[in-house]
Amino acid sequence: MSTRYLLLAEGFSGDPHYGKTMRGVLRYRRDDVVAILDSTRAGETEDGVPVVGTVEDALPLGPTTALVGVATQGGRFPPAWIDLLRRCIANRLDVENGLHVFLSDDPELSALAAERGVELRDLRRPPADLSTATGANLDVDATIVLTVGSDCAIGKMTVSLELDLEARQRGIESVFVPTGQTGMVIAGWGIAVDAVVADFIAGAAERLVVEGRERGGELLWVEGQGSLLHPVYSGVTLGLYHGSVPHLLVLCHEAGRTEIEGAGGGPHPIPPLRELVDLHERLALPARPARVACIALNTRALSESEARAAIAAAEAETGLPADDPVRFGAEKLVDAVLAAGP
Amino acid sequence: MSTRYLLLAEGFSGDPHYGKTMRGVLRYRRDDVVAILDSTRAGETEDGVPVVGTVEDALPLGPTTALVGVATQGGRFPPAWIDLLRRCIANRLDVENGLHVFLSDDPELSALAAERGVELRDLRRPPADLSTATGANLDVDATIVLTVGSDCAIGKMTVSLELDLEARQRGIESVFVPTGQTGMVIAGWGIAVDAVVADFIAGAAERLVVEGRERGGELLWVEGQGSLLHPVYSGVTLGLYHGSVPHLLVLCHEAGRTEIEGAGGGPHPIPPLRELVDLHERLALPARPARVACIALNTRALSESEARAAIAAAEAETGLPADDPVRFGAEKLVDAVLAAGP
Repeated sequence: MSTRYLLLAEGFSGDPHYGKTMRGVLRYRRDDVVAILDSTRAGETEDGVPVVGTVEDALPLGPTTALVGVATQGGRFPPAWIDLLRRCIANRLDVENGLHVFLSDDPELSALAAERGVELRDLRRPPADLSTATGANLDVDATIVLTVGSDCAIGKMTVSLELDLEARQRGIESVFVPTGQTGMVIAGWGIAVDAVVADFIAGAAERLVVEGRERGGELLWVEGQGSLLHPVYSGVTLGLYHGSVPHLLVLCHEAGRTEIEGAGGGPHPIPPLRELVDLHERLALPARPARVACIALNTRALSESEARAAIAAAEAETGLPADDPVRFGAEKLVDAVLAAGP
Repeated sequence: MSTRYLLLAEGFSGDPHYGKTMRGVLRYRRDDVVAILDSTRAGETEDGVPVVGTVEDALPLGPTTALVGVATQGGRFPPAWIDLLRRCIANRLDVENGLHVFLSDDPELSALAAERGVELRDLRRPPADLSTATGANLDVDATIVLTVGSDCAIGKMTVSLELDLEARQRGIESVFVPTGQTGMVIAGWGIAVDAVVADFIAGAAERLVVEGRERGGELLWVEGQGSLLHPVYSGVTLGLYHGSVPHLLVLCHEAGRTEIEGAGGGPHPIPPLRELVDLHERLALPARPARVACIALNTRALSESEARAAIAAAEAETGLPADDPVRFGAEKLVDAVLAAGP
């Protein structure tokens, strides 16, 4: 039986930042989603998917699996969620969880899952045999493209997925390489690099590009994480950068955003795009120089004419091709990547 | 009873890189070390400490605690070590372990430890309540100085310890902030930031500078880790940098070293010092600009005249004060830090 998801997004389904797992799955696995659970919006729909108020209300729709669709900062469970998860398990739903807290470590939930014969899958649980990077990444015979960004939650995963799709439609042996829980749900493999032991970040990224090649990829689109100047997540960003040894970078930015969001103690201004391009290129390993091939702008907050103007401005500032691949298609950015390298 | 260490360094006691935990403890807690265990050098001495071939040979010297003094890449235990640890426990020694593999997770060793009434202390086990950084680091009312470096294992911890000692001798309320297992053994507190969940690196660093202030520090010397362009460990380096929010950096370099060591797939050349200064300053958070205050050179491989020439060359290249604080004293670099800021 194929997976049919109930997305758990209690209290968060309308929030563009904290609901990003839900949004990603809705966009790329829409056909496998039967309902969204959010009691604050019960009876509404989201992208045509019914929003329900309780687990029991979702059951007639035939879900097989409850997916934790909320990515709270630090990955902790709000206490009220434990009740919700208990009800999912009691109703014989498997649970996929992308948070840093592992459901299978909870004795009560594990016991209940065993009793009901359901599986608790902790997507962020790292492979047990992970270790430090070895240098095998530099031997991967593929063009490696990493999305990087001016902030978190601005669409790096989406850009990687859209560019991969466009490349595959052109007949290229292209593979999306998932590095976070949402990408893993969408692609069905991967490692959440933000959840590994800190010393093993580059090792995890290395393993992912090696596996991307083994899966047939000649063009690998590595899902980026965080941002180089993000006060909270920059370590993951740089470890992923160096461990995935990209030849090319796609710099993602939300048009109009001037400050990093969700970090305390600020203000945390975002530097100009041309400085970000330079900073990223200078931080490449000498053993694997990397260039920024193009700029992916997220223009969701703008009108179409404003979006076109923002794209033109980004091109003028950086001298690189720019576009919003979600809004205007991925052709231009894929062209830019293919023209750039490796 | 105070701790009396038997340093376990089987096969590694003569190796300057892999024996760095041992060397740090010998330098800064010499009086608490009764013996070194390394069967390949039994009967010799190291810094005046007897080297023994077996645990049993060390017992007449009265150790209370065996310390794993080897930092292998990736932190795994060589299999032969398990036997050695079993013998330590059987002989009623506590064990302190700085590797990524936790002794207390081993059912057999744990059972044996319980039976013998000894403690297994895994120094790299992160605090259970760690999470992401909050911004509280920016409120720490102290001058924060982080050591950074052109490579691993070139003496960042030693430089932090020497500069802290010099500052305390001048009557400054100065505190060394340990971020790795050796620093933790020396100072008796800290978090091994390379062992936390990757998303929590900056959170761990933040907690450490907050605690450094709580311990009375008005001048905090944060022990650096890794290197920004290290293919394996750079993620930890940047997360520690952004999470500890230093006002000032001390750039550490081994004179004459031109390549990063211990990383596969190279060559991995080290950029010129002036480029490293610039790269580090550009990577500071906009909310906490940081300047490199001075250069700490490790000149152990050079003659005294060569060392003086290397120091002069580093000053000429960077325009910053430089010295080898281990060889020539920490006065000059502490002067440079006090003159620089915050």
